[in-house]
Amino acid sequence: MEKLKKYVSVKDEDQFHHQGAVELLVFNFLLILTILTIWLFKNHRFRFLHETGGAMLYGLVMGLIIRYTTKASDVESGTVYECEKLKSGPSTLLINITNQVYEYQYKGEISHHNVNGHQGNAMLQKMTFDPSIFFNILLPPIIFHAGYSLKKRHFFRNLGSILTYAFLGTAISCIIIGLIMYGFVKAMVHIGQLKGWEFHFTDCLFFGSLMSATDPVTVLAIFHELHVDTDLYTLLFGESVLNDAVAIVLTCSISIYSPKENPNAFDAAAFFQSVGNFLGIFAGSFAMGSSYAVVTALISFMHLTKFTKLCEFPMLETGLFFLLSWSAFLSAEAAGLTGIVAVLFCGVTQAHYTYNNLSPDSKMRTKQLFEFMNFLAENVIFCYMGLALFTFENHIFNPLFIFGASVAVFLARACNIYPLSFLLNLGRKQKIPRNFQHMMMFSGLRGAIAFALAIQDTESQPKQMMFTTALLIVFFTVWVFGGGTTPMLTWLQIRVGVDPDEDLKAEAASQSASNLDKNTTKAESAWLVRVWYDFDHKYLKPILTHAGPPLTTTLPEWCNPVARILTSPSAYGDQLKDDDTDYIINNDELTENYESSAHIPVPAQDRTCSTQATGKEDIHEGDLGLGGYKLQLKHTAGQP
Amino acid sequence: MEKLKKYVSVKDEDQFHHQGAVELLVFNFLLILTILTIWLFKNHRFRFLHETGGAMLYGLVMGLIIRYTTKASDVESGTVYECEKLKSGPSTLLINITNQVYEYQYKGEISHHNVNGHQGNAMLQKMTFDPSIFFNILLPPIIFHAGYSLKKRHFFRNLGSILTYAFLGTAISCIIIGLIMYGFVKAMVHIGQLKGWEFHFTDCLFFGSLMSATDPVTVLAIFHELHVDTDLYTLLFGESVLNDAVAIVLTCSISIYSPKENPNAFDAAAFFQSVGNFLGIFAGSFAMGSSYAVVTALISFMHLTKFTKLCEFPMLETGLFFLLSWSAFLSAEAAGLTGIVAVLFCGVTQAHYTYNNLSPDSKMRTKQLFEFMNFLAENVIFCYMGLALFTFENHIFNPLFIFGASVAVFLARACNIYPLSFLLNLGRKQKIPRNFQHMMMFSGLRGAIAFALAIQDTESQPKQMMFTTALLIVFFTVWVFGGGTTPMLTWLQIRVGVDPDEDLKAEAASQSASNLDKNTTKAESAWLVRVWYDFDHKYLKPILTHAGPPLTTTLPEWCNPVARILTSPSAYGDQLKDDDTDYIINNDELTENYESSAHIPVPAQDRTCSTQATGKEDIHEGDLGLGGYKLQLKHTAGQP
Repeated sequence: MEKLKKYVSVKDEDQFHHQGAVELLVFNFLLILTILTIWLFKNHRFRFLHETGGAMLYGLVMGLIIRYTTKASDVESGTVYECEKLKSGPSTLLINITNQVYEYQYKGEISHHNVNGHQGNAMLQKMTFDPSIFFNILLPPIIFHAGYSLKKRHFFRNLGSILTYAFLGTAISCIIIGLIMYGFVKAMVHIGQLKGWEFHFTDCLFFGSLMSATDPVTVLAIFHELHVDTDLYTLLFGESVLNDAVAIVLTCSISIYSPKENPNAFDAAAFFQSVGNFLGIFAGSFAMGSSYAVVTALISFMHLTKFTKLCEFPMLETGLFFLLSWSAFLSAEAAGLTGIVAVLFCGVTQAHYTYNNLSPDSKMRTKQLFEFMNFLAENVIFCYMGLALFTFENHIFNPLFIFGASVAVFLARACNIYPLSFLLNLGRKQKIPRNFQHMMMFSGLRGAIAFALAIQDTESQPKQMMFTTALLIVFFTVWVFGGGTTPMLTWLQIRVGVDPDEDLKAEAASQSASNLDKNTTKAESAWLVRVWYDFDHKYLKPILTHAGPPLTTTLPEWCNPVARILTSPSAYGDQLKDDDTDYIINNDELTENYESSAHIPVPAQDRTCSTQATGKEDIHEGDLGLGGYKLQLKHTAGQP
Repeated sequence: MEKLKKYVSVKDEDQFHHQGAVELLVFNFLLILTILTIWLFKNHRFRFLHETGGAMLYGLVMGLIIRYTTKASDVESGTVYECEKLKSGPSTLLINITNQVYEYQYKGEISHHNVNGHQGNAMLQKMTFDPSIFFNILLPPIIFHAGYSLKKRHFFRNLGSILTYAFLGTAISCIIIGLIMYGFVKAMVHIGQLKGWEFHFTDCLFFGSLMSATDPVTVLAIFHELHVDTDLYTLLFGESVLNDAVAIVLTCSISIYSPKENPNAFDAAAFFQSVGNFLGIFAGSFAMGSSYAVVTALISFMHLTKFTKLCEFPMLETGLFFLLSWSAFLSAEAAGLTGIVAVLFCGVTQAHYTYNNLSPDSKMRTKQLFEFMNFLAENVIFCYMGLALFTFENHIFNPLFIFGASVAVFLARACNIYPLSFLLNLGRKQKIPRNFQHMMMFSGLRGAIAFALAIQDTESQPKQMMFTTALLIVFFTVWVFGGGTTPMLTWLQIRVGVDPDEDLKAEAASQSASNLDKNTTKAESAWLVRVWYDFDHKYLKPILTHAGPPLTTTLPEWCNPVARILTSPSAYGDQLKDDDTDYIINNDELTENYESSAHIPVPAQDRTCSTQATGKEDIHEGDLGLGGYKLQLKHTAGQP
């Protein structure tokens, strides 16, 4: 008899196991459907529903089907049991039920009012992921990929503006949404809604910070496909990627902010602690991410010395690259920092240094691997967002709150883009035109990050209402604004089908006449960028990659012994290789760094564009000073 | 106050979350160490410790460190609580502890004697994976990769022998280990060990079946690196890959075998039910795996028609390929079949059909993706095996049982290889020489599959003892036999550094003289293979890929209308493309299929090897009859 019972329990476990397979199969099915749809759309050049919108739609339909075709099976799961002996919740609970010991794993605390949500449909519960899956499995590849592909032309040119939008803009957006929502909540309390809820200003700020994360996926995919004006693309891409990092850390610091006494009163100490937290977490995550990337760069750098050749084993190289990048994420998490931010800056640094050291095979492997992981993770998240509307069981739809949030998000975006653009235009040589500003305003979609931040904590009623609201705003913006991108571009008369190389060339030609007066204004605004670029080019690149001039020429003379050790013997032979100079140099920087000493009025912009016109990533280009002249000669030779 | 409490509980959760990061970081660290070691080994051409052995060693050391540096933290976890109200174990348990509701997730049943194993070190518990992770996450990529790269030359040539070793050999091995172990267990009971244990013959057979899974990783990696004789390589590779599938299904069927009355007596009905289960699960999984692959082939096949071009979007193609292959696994699991077996045959079928339809970019992407996943999964498993020796808390070391198992494994391998080789040699044209047999005997390592099968169920004491024993045998064989592979090859005077093309050519030359008498013997032994090959080449390949002759020529005349529909218009243009004929053809088949009609004594073997000598995979080769002549001409032209 005992034997028989055992088999029954094993079968029970199998049932569990098979259900896991069924859920994953549902996702696989949705993804396959999405891929087939994308294929069809691409085939018909249909752009009114982006793949992310399609994935959401399929998720929605599937959620609807699951909700209304499966029925409540596990009656017992809604019952709350009393246990007098337990004083706190242990991580593993062993319970003796009818003389058999069962093991239970701690999942979390539940508010009393949510208990009834747990009564019911086991299938729905199974389809609801653990929120930490988003932060630990799905987001890292997306964010890393964004960082890894941030090595875009025009990026460093617009760095100042991007940083302003990302840091200042996100802070503005967060505060404005927080303030407006606080007003709405006060009004709702006044008219008798939200009875007995605890809804503080910090909660409103929390909502503001999570709603400030804009989506780097939907619009940019369309921009990329249509070859929209490069400056606009770079501004939006840079802003939305960095803005995610800022929003995540901001949300984290706000949730730690806990004033000691009255939660509604302003507590200066707690506020400054939160600001300190923000800066600490951001800087720590940044340092963690980049240091792992630097380690990777150093290891892969070693392959050119005599002793070892890692580049001969692309699999090992790719494996190491992958594992060290993932370790950056995990270390940041383990240290209490933000893994997502660490992985973003790890990606940026990997692209800037390590990428240059990789073998051609590994360059392609890593790119394709992260591209693929990004593709899958993105579609899973958007499918899941669609599913969550029907499978999540604790939604609180409050029309007034949703209306208030929509208004707040719209106003906050406006207060972010227009004033900042105005201020930036004061300093920018090349102004951000009105139609770009309107387009940036329009492209403020909310996506995966806002969703992931909102789903992290859905215990209290305010948080549940925020989650529902965030989800609906994501739906609305992805479908309406995402779908409206192409018409909007036409309406705002923004150039599409731009070849970035041609673009730069034309621009350079128009500028070459009025070259003198602009250098001075530019020099001030981009001073920090230029200092960094100089330092990077002279010291970091030679140490971490085989690009840039040998250290022996850049370091002061008394450092020569050290410089000789740090510069590998082969570096002298390879010193002409710096294959991303064309990405990070700036017309004016070029002029100043390399012409100010030479004092020859070479049309610097022409060099840059001829460099870029080759279009290849792996062009083995000369050290800038030299290569510029060479290429310029080639270029003039081509134009009789 | 309530607020404060909440933050505390959030922090608690964070603690959990961060510990997850720490564990993963430990694995990442081990993998990075392993990669660096492999790099060092490859650099020094050091072959006495294979990377798998290295990974295990690092895991072992790390396990030792974790075991003796971390201490028991969770005192409460060993206590068993009573709950009178519960009648059975619900999947989610809500418990009210000091007025807060905690959610607990069902993990499994625990035997009473294991309860004390749960008392103690939380870190050790965390480092112990859920066994289902092996079967659902780590093994599928390894097995799929094996299937996907099974498309090896010489494979179909040795198909009969491979199937014999895999099916008959595994069954023999299972029964012999089971019998010997039953004897040992009886003896142990006799001398007073194993008091009060339930240890039936089925348990012994269960152990036999799991210990019959040989490792396809360690030895074959060395063989591949050393370019060992191609026939030996193919025999071992085919055997160990298929043998895993057989052992998994066998283990599954034996664990279902439950005689109604006395578990020691032979129950014919239950036995035949088990045999039926075996056949049903195997055939079902095979069908599930191949049908998903056929669907993939059909979808990717569509890309050559006018309407749609999936191959223009390699990312979508790769995504679809990946998702459909994974769905094969999940569907099999959901249907109660064996996912691993499904994924194996899915891989084989994908390689045989879909691979031909993929764009060149996708061919490379899929290959590299699965290669990478395989690499990571393999190293994780071997690291984990090392870890498990110290972190698993319910080991039962029984020297007598371990000794018995070692003897049994050795004898079972001998009874598998030598008699079957003798029988096979009766029918084989090209005998399996004695030194090959010795090498196959020596290469019977146990690895990841045996481990994963053993760790699946460690509830009862016999199962725990089996797990410990299996783990030690894996360690011993991987280190001793894996490390001894190179010396053994030298000692047995087996050729290394063989170029498979040259090999085949030389062989062909030596055979061309005595060509006539062999065809007849071969014709009988490979009859089934030839029928299948013929059917595949004439009907399946033209329907699923663009290789092979157009259907209009192979189908009978009255089928012409159907054939025209099934053959896409472009197929006629592309009919000369069949890039894996060189893998699956057999010298004799070539002779018979294409010469029997022509009656020209062309040295058929020469064709094959000249085809292979090009070394490329994507050579657009002619339909065999034609291409052979062309290439043969080229070949003779090259040899004046």
